[in-house]
Amino acid sequence: MREKVGMTSPQLFENVVYNMKKCFKGKIVTLDISRKTLPDLEEDTPELGVIMLPPEMSIQQAEKCSKAGVRALIMITGGFKNHQRQQLRQLIKEYKIRILGPNTIMGAINTTNGLNTTFERDVIPTKGNIAVISQSGGVGACLLDWACFYDIGISKFVFMGDKIDVNDIDVLEYFGNDPNTKVICLYMEGIENGRKLIETATKVVKTKPVLAVKGGITQEAARRAFSHTASIAGTDVVFDAALRKAGVIRTQDLEELLNSAVALSKQPTLKGDNIVIVSNVGGPAILAADAVVRSGLKLATLSKTTRKKIESCYPGVDASNPIDLIADARAERYDTALMNVLADANVDGVMIINMLKSTFFEPKDAASIEKIVKKYSTKPVVNVPMGGEDFNLVREALGKTTMPLYNLPEKAAKALKALRLYEEIVEKLR
Amino acid sequence: MREKVGMTSPQLFENVVYNMKKCFKGKIVTLDISRKTLPDLEEDTPELGVIMLPPEMSIQQAEKCSKAGVRALIMITGGFKNHQRQQLRQLIKEYKIRILGPNTIMGAINTTNGLNTTFERDVIPTKGNIAVISQSGGVGACLLDWACFYDIGISKFVFMGDKIDVNDIDVLEYFGNDPNTKVICLYMEGIENGRKLIETATKVVKTKPVLAVKGGITQEAARRAFSHTASIAGTDVVFDAALRKAGVIRTQDLEELLNSAVALSKQPTLKGDNIVIVSNVGGPAILAADAVVRSGLKLATLSKTTRKKIESCYPGVDASNPIDLIADARAERYDTALMNVLADANVDGVMIINMLKSTFFEPKDAASIEKIVKKYSTKPVVNVPMGGEDFNLVREALGKTTMPLYNLPEKAAKALKALRLYEEIVEKLR
Repeated sequence: MREKVGMTSPQLFENVVYNMKKCFKGKIVTLDISRKTLPDLEEDTPELGVIMLPPEMSIQQAEKCSKAGVRALIMITGGFKNHQRQQLRQLIKEYKIRILGPNTIMGAINTTNGLNTTFERDVIPTKGNIAVISQSGGVGACLLDWACFYDIGISKFVFMGDKIDVNDIDVLEYFGNDPNTKVICLYMEGIENGRKLIETATKVVKTKPVLAVKGGITQEAARRAFSHTASIAGTDVVFDAALRKAGVIRTQDLEELLNSAVALSKQPTLKGDNIVIVSNVGGPAILAADAVVRSGLKLATLSKTTRKKIESCYPGVDASNPIDLIADARAERYDTALMNVLADANVDGVMIINMLKSTFFEPKDAASIEKIVKKYSTKPVVNVPMGGEDFNLVREALGKTTMPLYNLPEKAAKALKALRLYEEIVEKLR
Repeated sequence: MREKVGMTSPQLFENVVYNMKKCFKGKIVTLDISRKTLPDLEEDTPELGVIMLPPEMSIQQAEKCSKAGVRALIMITGGFKNHQRQQLRQLIKEYKIRILGPNTIMGAINTTNGLNTTFERDVIPTKGNIAVISQSGGVGACLLDWACFYDIGISKFVFMGDKIDVNDIDVLEYFGNDPNTKVICLYMEGIENGRKLIETATKVVKTKPVLAVKGGITQEAARRAFSHTASIAGTDVVFDAALRKAGVIRTQDLEELLNSAVALSKQPTLKGDNIVIVSNVGGPAILAADAVVRSGLKLATLSKTTRKKIESCYPGVDASNPIDLIADARAERYDTALMNVLADANVDGVMIINMLKSTFFEPKDAASIEKIVKKYSTKPVVNVPMGGEDFNLVREALGKTTMPLYNLPEKAAKALKALRLYEEIVEKLR
């Protein structure tokens, strides 16, 4: 976003105040310069200042805040010139104030204390344990919109902006130590200090997974990324090698990023490659088997005992992998199958397919399955209520539970693969 | 689905009757064997019989229908044994009656005359020009659910079942000649008569695109596909070569299948590789540029005139490709940009990004843009209201228009690629 957008409009300012008042658990003091209602800052110094004014006025207020002893600033507005950024750096040096931005556009969200400096009214994510760092306002806004729409639990969300002080690496390190964060997602267009990033990521991934999407991977787009965030996009091969070395899991697009994050935030890692598919429909189970193999995982070979146990309960069911429980399967049949396959040493993880259309399955069955999985499993289980409305109905029932949900088996297979990759990363570090 | 599912339950039967009565424009006679309310068929012979009974009773009714002069049957129920299928074949031979099925599960949908033999109440797709053939009940049900949920316009939908008479190739040929069908989607697990399929597809693709997803492409899944539909899945390489030869466009998953079908049903083909991206956000435009290049297309180099025309109207806008119209762009700015890039001989197609979150853009702007595109363009344009709620809001405004919508640029790029592939297929046939 550019200065022209009017990040300084009274409406956007009101929106930020609205979101802050709705979410923030601490005390808020608002200062609307245009309305000349300036309380005396020194009487009641806030810890954090959020500034949303044109550059010159932003700098004036930043100075006022610095002098008043405010410890940190989130500077929303863009359009700062180099000499203006220099003025801000001077304040940092002089007053030890920390600055996020300027040009962060949406600033930051912290679902623990309710800080929310975004300017879209009621775009407030559910509290969860996924943290997001975005080098782009637009991509960050998309990730936030996606997270809100699909009820993906967020711990913290940071829009980096111009990074005159706090940079991605600082935030990555902070999230690494944040007890409310279990998984970290990055959208990057470039790296200023590759060595430091790798060092920090290597430390962080010991305790929590870091996932990244890189924009500007093709030469054509990289040229553009340069002019967009003034960061130099390395060649993609170099970038890829660096991330791999650091133990960062790279995903192809934003959907895969959040899909993988959800699996990592809700399920244990995948200790081996062997996946069993438990389905109530035949064709989709075949697509799931293809997806598992194409993602680099394997179809588990079930023990004879496991097969017999399942087949003896349900004549007509073929319990070879993928297991087709047949279209009249309800929660009870899934539960029996799941308990048996999860107890099988040949199985490392499970992909459940439960379609509603053309079957007898109901959303409440999915909820019951989730309880069984949670109770018995130390192995990851993901669920595919495949389709459009079907996905939506099961999501309404299970969205806030520990069961990751995907609308196609291909997406679930990639999420399982992320669970495997993180296990391999951790194993290598041991 | 298997016999156990209870395809013969009174509830499912009532559901089929409900859907038929709700949709079908012709006369319906219902015969509920269990209630012994059998009108005399010979008094008023229907053209088509829909039979939903256990195998033995199905055969009895099929014979009754054949003798009464019914011309075609849709046989829903599964679980037929070989000798029972043989009995049906005998009826076909003797009475020249045509049979779809048995084991079609959902039967068929024709949105022109309102035929709908599916058993899920109110799962009724919007009328459109995409036809679907599914070799699997479950995958078909998923495609139908997806089409209904995302308002994808369907002309006809056929669930193949056991194919004792009417087979995929017959249906493909029929759809090829169907004036209400513009695009054909196939879900296949195997081919019985590869040579005939290629022959037929080669004919059909001269006038309309055929898209396919193949299940059972990995050896592991193929073994399962064999037991599922009793069809021999060839090795994937052979299959791929055969489809390529026939001019069938293969997609990776069901979402890409329907996404590509929507583009082909709504937009002209792509006459060259050069794509321009017109966006109101910077980062997403970079992801879009990556996606275009990764899908095998190119970023168009705009003429100086085009760039100057756009930049002179909107100081601050950088009209190099991808074009960033800046976050305060509304319909008018998009319209100017689009008219100019569409008039540029260096441009073959357009990907629009219009995010709502973090911008000033509103769904009504998207509707206005659609009108401009429709009026001026002989080049394909696809639209990416990127995100979760954003996508949904624009879909509500534009879902039924000629503008294909995608929630991520990667999906839009694949759809543009399908428009290019079909153009290449048609060029080769000229």
